[in-house]
Amino acid sequence: MFIGTVIGQLWSTKKVANLQSLRFLLVRPQGLNRAPNTDVVVAADVLGAGVGEKVMVAYGRAARLAVGDENCSIEAAVVGIIDNIDARGPDDTAPT
Amino acid sequence: MFIGTVIGQLWSTKKVANLQSLRFLLVRPQGLNRAPNTDVVVAADVLGAGVGEKVMVAYGRAARLAVGDENCSIEAAVVGIIDNIDARGPDDTAPT
Amino acid sequence: MFIGTVIGQLWSTKKVANLQSLRFLLVRPQGLNRAPNTDVVVAADVLGAGVGEKVMVAYGRAARLAVGDENCSIEAAVVGIIDNIDARGPDDTAPT
Amino acid sequence: MFIGTVIGQLWSTKKVANLQSLRFLLVRPQGLNRAPNTDVVVAADVLGAGVGEKVMVAYGRAARLAVGDENCSIEAAVVGIIDNIDARGPDDTAPT
Amino acid sequence: MFIGTVIGQLWSTKKVANLQSLRFLLVRPQGLNRAPNTDVVVAADVLGAGVGEKVMVAYGRAARLAVGDENCSIEAAVVGIIDNIDARGPDDTAPT
Repeated sequence: MFIGTVIGQLWSTKKVANLQSLRFLLVRPQGLNRAPNTDVVVAADVLGAGVGEKVMVAYGRAARLAVGDENCSIEAAVVGIIDNIDARGPDDTAPT
Repeated sequence: MFIGTVIGQLWSTKKVANLQSLRFLLVRPQGLNRAPNTDVVVAADVLGAGVGEKVMVAYGRAARLAVGDENCSIEAAVVGIIDNIDARGPDDTAPT
Repeated sequence: MFIGTVIGQLWSTKKVANLQSLRFLLVRPQGLNRAPNTDVVVAADVLGAGVGEKVMVAYGRAARLAVGDENCSIEAAVVGIIDNIDARGPDDTAPT
Repeated sequence: MFIGTVIGQLWSTKKVANLQSLRFLLVRPQGLNRAPNTDVVVAADVLGAGVGEKVMVAYGRAARLAVGDENCSIEAAVVGIIDNIDARGPDDTAPT
Repeated sequence: MFIGTVIGQLWSTKKVANLQSLRFLLVRPQGLNRAPNTDVVVAADVLGAGVGEKVMVAYGRAARLAVGDENCSIEAAVVGIIDNIDARGPDDTAPT
């Protein structure tokens, strides 16, 4: 899974039938202590995450289990809205 | 899933038997506020997406479910043609 | 799936038993309008692709379906030999 | 699988129901003889790995098998805490 | 699958129960005509590959099939020890 920030939403009228009831968010993956990059992942969302919120995103079957439909055509979904991150930054990492 | 732009099509006569009836598009993945790059993904398409259209592409079993054949040899497919994207660009992102 | 050029072959005597009858090609992934890079994917091949041919390669279960054995230890296979590619180059892409 | 260092933890109250009992670590992937980078993977953990420990992380179904629930929405998990690594650095590698 | 060179081994005492009997190698992926990089993949091995040997590594279910246990928590395994590679270098590639 990865951490990302919700930056928006997308809409598609002409889509695969098994996706009719899903909401799709744009999520920008983030590292720690690093400016957000410009890559974007499209993730299905059933938790109601809003723009600016930090979320945890999972790929593959994990994503389909998250939206409660193992036979829908998604491979990325928000699996949690993040309350708190407690991490040591790269500068604090002990030498290896 | 990722967002991409359809840039063309490819044809293959000598191919795996389970792919006979499929149409294959070339899709260039895109970030936001970023020039398209030169990487290209080959995605099966049953929605009739045309060159220049923005599409949502899914990988793996999600792709096979999208084309309606769980036993075909694809692992990428167009799952939706995008009508609208509402996203905050990287420059508008709140500091983290 | 991705587009690549067959650049060679590899041989392995000591290998997993379920791979005994397979042929392994070296495939270099390619973008459009871009010089080939030096990364190499090992792909099983049952289509008889030759050095210099452009091929379409699929990963995962799609690859095992392509070689006709869902229980072999491969995760990449040639699924088609490409006859023709019709693509707009990056320079022709409409501004986004 | 990859080698990484545990650098922290994250908490999520609003999450997919099948994740209620899991602990989530932040793991920074590492190469050999190389400074840690700033990418971060979120991995479920049932081994009790602590900050600063080197761990082995697996993706996909392997991760779900590691936490003992094939139907939970994770795709990365700590599968081992590393005691010892015996590796030749890049500078010792024989020319190819 | 990819080609890599075995550069070492790792040991883990505290690990997921389904991994007890496996040997874990460190494999550095390699392109052709290119110096080895510093990225490292952890791959299970049942073929007895030694340091310095070139191997073929597969991911996902292919890896679990290679070690003969579909329910173990690995997603990378050595599937063959390479005897010979016959490849045209990038400089010999016909212009595209």
